[in-house]
Formats: sequence, C-alpha cells, structure tokens
Amino acid sequence: MGGLACAKRLGRARVDVLLIDRRNYHLLTPLLYQVATALLSPPDIAYPFRAGLHRWRNVRFRQASIVAVDFEQRELRAADGQRLPYDYLVLATGSEDDYFDNPGLAEGTLGMKTLEQAQRLRNHVLACLEHAAQAETEPERRRWLSFVVVGGGPSGVEYAGALVEGAPRLLPPLPEKLGRYAQRVLERRGVEVLTEALVTDVIGDRVEFSNGAQIEARTVVWSAGVRATNPTGEVAHARSRRLDVDDRLRLSRHPEVFVIGDLARVIDDGRELPMLSPPAIQEGRFAAGMISDDVRGAGRARRPFRYRDRGAMAVIGRNSAVASIWGLQLTELVGWLVWLMVHLYYLIGFRNRLVVLVNWGWNYLRADRPIRIITASDADPSVSRLAPEH
Amino acid sequence: MGGLACAKRLGRARVDVLLIDRRNYHLLTPLLYQVATALLSPPDIAYPFRAGLHRWRNVRFRQASIVAVDFEQRELRAADGQRLPYDYLVLATGSEDDYFDNPGLAEGTLGMKTLEQAQRLRNHVLACLEHAAQAETEPERRRWLSFVVVGGGPSGVEYAGALVEGAPRLLPPLPEKLGRYAQRVLERRGVEVLTEALVTDVIGDRVEFSNGAQIEARTVVWSAGVRATNPTGEVAHARSRRLDVDDRLRLSRHPEVFVIGDLARVIDDGRELPMLSPPAIQEGRFAAGMISDDVRGAGRARRPFRYRDRGAMAVIGRNSAVASIWGLQLTELVGWLVWLMVHLYYLIGFRNRLVVLVNWGWNYLRADRPIRIITASDADPSVSRLAPEH
Repeated sequence: MGGLACAKRLGRARVDVLLIDRRNYHLLTPLLYQVATALLSPPDIAYPFRAGLHRWRNVRFRQASIVAVDFEQRELRAADGQRLPYDYLVLATGSEDDYFDNPGLAEGTLGMKTLEQAQRLRNHVLACLEHAAQAETEPERRRWLSFVVVGGGPSGVEYAGALVEGAPRLLPPLPEKLGRYAQRVLERRGVEVLTEALVTDVIGDRVEFSNGAQIEARTVVWSAGVRATNPTGEVAHARSRRLDVDDRLRLSRHPEVFVIGDLARVIDDGRELPMLSPPAIQEGRFAAGMISDDVRGAGRARRPFRYRDRGAMAVIGRNSAVASIWGLQLTELVGWLVWLMVHLYYLIGFRNRLVVLVNWGWNYLRADRPIRIITASDADPSVSRLAPEH
Repeated sequence: MGGLACAKRLGRARVDVLLIDRRNYHLLTPLLYQVATALLSPPDIAYPFRAGLHRWRNVRFRQASIVAVDFEQRELRAADGQRLPYDYLVLATGSEDDYFDNPGLAEGTLGMKTLEQAQRLRNHVLACLEHAAQAETEPERRRWLSFVVVGGGPSGVEYAGALVEGAPRLLPPLPEKLGRYAQRVLERRGVEVLTEALVTDVIGDRVEFSNGAQIEARTVVWSAGVRATNPTGEVAHARSRRLDVDDRLRLSRHPEVFVIGDLARVIDDGRELPMLSPPAIQEGRFAAGMISDDVRGAGRARRPFRYRDRGAMAVIGRNSAVASIWGLQLTELVGWLVWLMVHLYYLIGFRNRLVVLVNWGWNYLRADRPIRIITASDADPSVSRLAPEH
C-alpha cells in the first residue's frame, strides 16, 4: 500500500520511477480473509501493477525478488542475479507471518498473509466440511469441524471460527469498548473466545497452551503476529525486524534511502505506529514529497512526518462491525456500512468494485458463500486426498 | 455436464440419488480457455455441486475419487478405500488429455482441461510477458513471446496464439466454410496457421514436426486430443478408451449400468458422437428417463436414444465467432452474439452470470484482460523464478 501510494505520487514529479515487486499485482490485504472464507475470488482483491500504472509514463514496473541492498554502491540485487542501481530508494517490503522461531507453529497452522495462503485456507476449510460429511464417528466429525484461530487482531476477529488471544482483550488497536462488543457478538455466534491464552505449539491435531490446556482441531489459522520482511541485512529490532528511521523517514546514514510501511519503525507522538495500511499510505506520500522537493531543489524544508490517525475498523459478521473513525465509535449496522464503503473505496479499478459488490450483495441476500470451490493446486494432503490430480 | 443433467432430472423421480465427483464443483469446460487467457477468474465458471443440488432433497453429493467398479457386486471403490453400493449406476467420468503415450509431450506442454491447468497456463503466459520485458537479447525476447497451440479444434482455435493442426483444416466439427473463415480471421490477427502438420515431440524450447520442421517457443499449449477417463477396467477402444453401449446407453452385460458423455461410444445415424457437451447432456437426461421408467414399472418401452444436433460454435476473438446452429452458418458479430448468449445460458447461477457479464463487458469496452495476476501456487519454474514463495 505504501510503495504504490509513493509511486503514484512520484508519477507527477520529474523523475524516473521503477516500481519493483515480487508479485505482479497489488493486493488489498485487509480483504484476504474474505478470500479465505469463500466470499471473494483471488482476482477480486488483486490488481495488476501494469494496469494500474500505465497512465504515468515515467513509472515502470519490474517483477523481481530483491535479496540484498548495497547501500554504498546504491544498488539492489535481485534473486535472478540482476543488479539495479538507484539514486533514491524507497523500501516498502512489508511484513510476513511471525512464528516466534517455532517450526511446529509454522508447519501446523495455516496463514492468511498472501493470496496463495488465503486460497489454501479456503480449500482446506471446504475439504474439512466434505470430510465431516463422510466421517463415521462423532469425535472424528467434531475434529473436522473444530476451527482454531490464533490471534485477536482485526484479521483474527474477522476470520470466522474459534478465537484464541494472548492479549487481555480483542482488537488492541481499537478502543476497549469496541473490543468487548466484538467479543459479545462472536460469542453469540458460537465462537469461544479465550483471552490471555498463549499458544505454545501445534502437534498434529493438538493445540497446546502455555497454561497446559489443549484443544483438538484439524484446522489452526495463524494470525497472531507479523514481522517486517527485511532484505537489507541491517541490524534491526530483534522482534519486529523494523528499521529505525529519522523524523523524515530516512535511514540516518543514507539520507537517499527512505523506509516506509511495516518495515519502518516510525515513532509518532511517543508511540510506534502499528503495521497497518493507513500509516503506510501516508508515509509513502510523504517520501514521494521529500524526493520531488529534493529533485526540484526546493528551498523550503519539509516538516517532519506526522501521522494523521483516521481510525481503525473490523467486521465481525453479517450486519455488524466495529469502527473507530472520525472520533466516533460505531457498531452494529452503521459500523458495518461504514466498513463496506471504506473497503470498496480502497479496491482499485471499477471492475473489481463491481464484482466485489455483486459478491457481497449475493452473500447478503442469500446468506451463501459464492466461491465454495476446492482447487487442488496446493500440497495440502487433506485436500489432495479428496481430489487427486490425474 | 452429462452427470449433472442426469442427477437433476432424477431429482424429480422417486429415487435416492448420490452424485459423486472428485471435485466439489461443476465446471463449464467450454469457458476454460477464458480462464487461461486472464479474462475470467476460476470461480466464475465453477459452481459448487452442493449449492446447485440442495433444492432436490433426494439428491446428495459426495466428493470422492472412484478407482474401480465391481459390476458383479454392484459396488464402487473410492481412492480412500470406501465402498459405495448401487442399484443403478450412471458412469459419466468424462475425458482427459491424450498425449499418445509420449511423455515428452506431456511434460513439455501445458494443458487446458482442468481449472488448475487453466490457471497454470494463465500464470505461465503472464510470466513469459514479464520475462520478455526483461530480456536482454532479441532472440531471447522472441522465445518468450512465441506461443504454439497444438490442436485446431474449438479449444485450440479459441486459445489465442500460434496454431498448429494435423487435420487438413480447422474446426472439424463445423462446416468447412466456417473452418476457412476462422483461419482467415486468425491469420489477420498475426496467428500463423499450419494444417496437416503433426507435432511429434517437444524437447526443451523446441517443437518438432513429423516433416522435420522445428519451432522455438517457451510456451506450447496442448489441445490436440482427449481420451475417456475410464475407471472400470473394462476392455475399451484402444485409442479413445470409450465404452460400447447398447442403443439405450447401457452396458450390454449389465443393463443397470448406463454410460454417458465422453466415456460412452454412442453411434447415432452411423457416426460416433463427438466428445462435446450437447451429446453428454442429452444422454444424461435419457439415462434419467430410463431409470425412472424402470423404477415406476412403466409399461411402455422407451425408444432408443437419438441425438438432436443443435449445432456447434467457436469464438475467434473480439466481434467474431463461427456458429453452425438452427441450420444457419453464422460468422462475424452475429456469430459472436449468439456464442455469448448460449454460453451465458449454460453458466449456472445468477451470480456467475452477472460476474461473467461484468468481465466480458470490461474486456469489450477497455480491450483489457482483467485477471492479469500471477499466482505462485504451482511448481512452474519460470513462474517461481520470478515470484519465489517466502
């Protein structure tokens, strides 16, 4: 979100811009959970960079995976060996799932951070329902129908299923009142909410907690935390892997390098900005402004970056969402409508908006998930056992 | 298409129906090439069986892969070891790519017969375009941009790209005049059409022909023929693997077993019916009628199966299609509009029709392919080299 916002803003400046991404599409990550729950189809929330950028003649796109940055030579190294020189660099590499260095958690759970993971999760959950329909004993059936979601942030709350949270309450980025409301709504819908519970391991079908408790489930969804994807090799904060930046989002030793989004540890009003889209977008625009000032040799010095908090929100289900926006705390239908409008706005492209509206409308009127198909392109054994490739 | 038509018709009869498929969705295969060319998204042409069948209370669905049929015990064997008994059996297992027992062709080409294959082909072609944009020499660039399509039937003609055909002309199921028209339109659009040319092997980037000629291309699409998917172990026709049936679509030694669609070798008016959807659908409805007559003990004997040929069609591109329908031979815009209407009709579900219309309208007005995203869920090295999974 940050890199694209920066590239678009630079499209107006007299500079040559090269946008590099390891995917060829921009992804609206806040809607990934809807792909994972068979409500939207992957291309609905993905938009090809080339289609989005062709109106700016000075912005080019290159699909490449960056494995190293040589700050002294001012050069990027791609996975295929190519070297890409730069005058200014904006690093916006985002974040990835954090398993706290526990391989058991990485292997035993399903993530929800990429389009492929979301699709794999959809296939897995639908295959579990098919298995449950064929199960011969009740305990067997119950294992197929037990879904554990680890993590009570927006993604975890939004993903339907059982909910397990290590923090004392749900939705830490939102006001406490909204967290309690979300918990009530989830419990009314059959979700058991555990707070102050830490998952220590997942072995086979067994989820283990720090207090010794256990749950049996065939599906464990991991949304308990992310850490920055840091390709620089720079010393970074051990836990979050974020890079320190100055008050204008630059590396202090390399003022031609800007760092934005999940990768940047931006301190605003004494607190570290969270890994969410709104700070990333504002940081991207700020970095673009700094670069175009510098290139034009603008005399005036730009003020330090300040984040304008416009709120946060999460949907909990049909007709209810929580939103902390414009100084208001919204719940129920009003929160839900605000959530819908804001997310439609962030989808790129008229076609995507129309298709998503069709799918949401269908889901609303029919209470049906339209994308209930199991594709067998992944290596999930439970799926491939049902639908082998011939 | 045949199995689903049969199950729906049996939904009206006083019988218990179990529909078995190794996928959990019905696929409109004639539109697969549009998934492969980034025009439609996989769920647009797939419809979950459970969603389509829930209005018939006597029809259940089970996702399973059938590996053997015991005609004596009247029992099916599934890949997971389960045994499923039957009173009547309708076999409609369809067909798969036929590589004429040449592993080089199977490995060196990309198919277009399943949703996964179509998605892989889309990812591959888009990745080729990204590679071409980065190519450093002209021959390298040309290899990335050379696309060979083997097979001049409807799928091959509909798939945009270079075209290679062993038969003396294109589109054998349609009148010769329409085949010549299709060839002219393709050539005008930059497709080189080779007829009476047989591909003997694909080694690396090299496509070899029986006359000794060679073409260099990174992409070879295989749509040169299918053979029946035959799980019965019965002796079948060596080339097509189809099963012989009597004039009421039954196995002669097992009159409780019906065979329909691509698996059945149905002789009508002295010719073998082709492996296409319209015969399959009519055969499915006929088999359903036979079964419900038999169950009710209806006195009258049903007449032998006769195929009512309603025509065939293929789209060649923007504003042009060929259709042989209602005794007319249609081309240009009229053929194209007829093609659109017929295919919209066969899509199941209002949502799918609406989403497909949005995508077609977008493509028509903007001349843009909406689904230009490369997902990295497959093992294609050219794709994963560009977009490695982290």
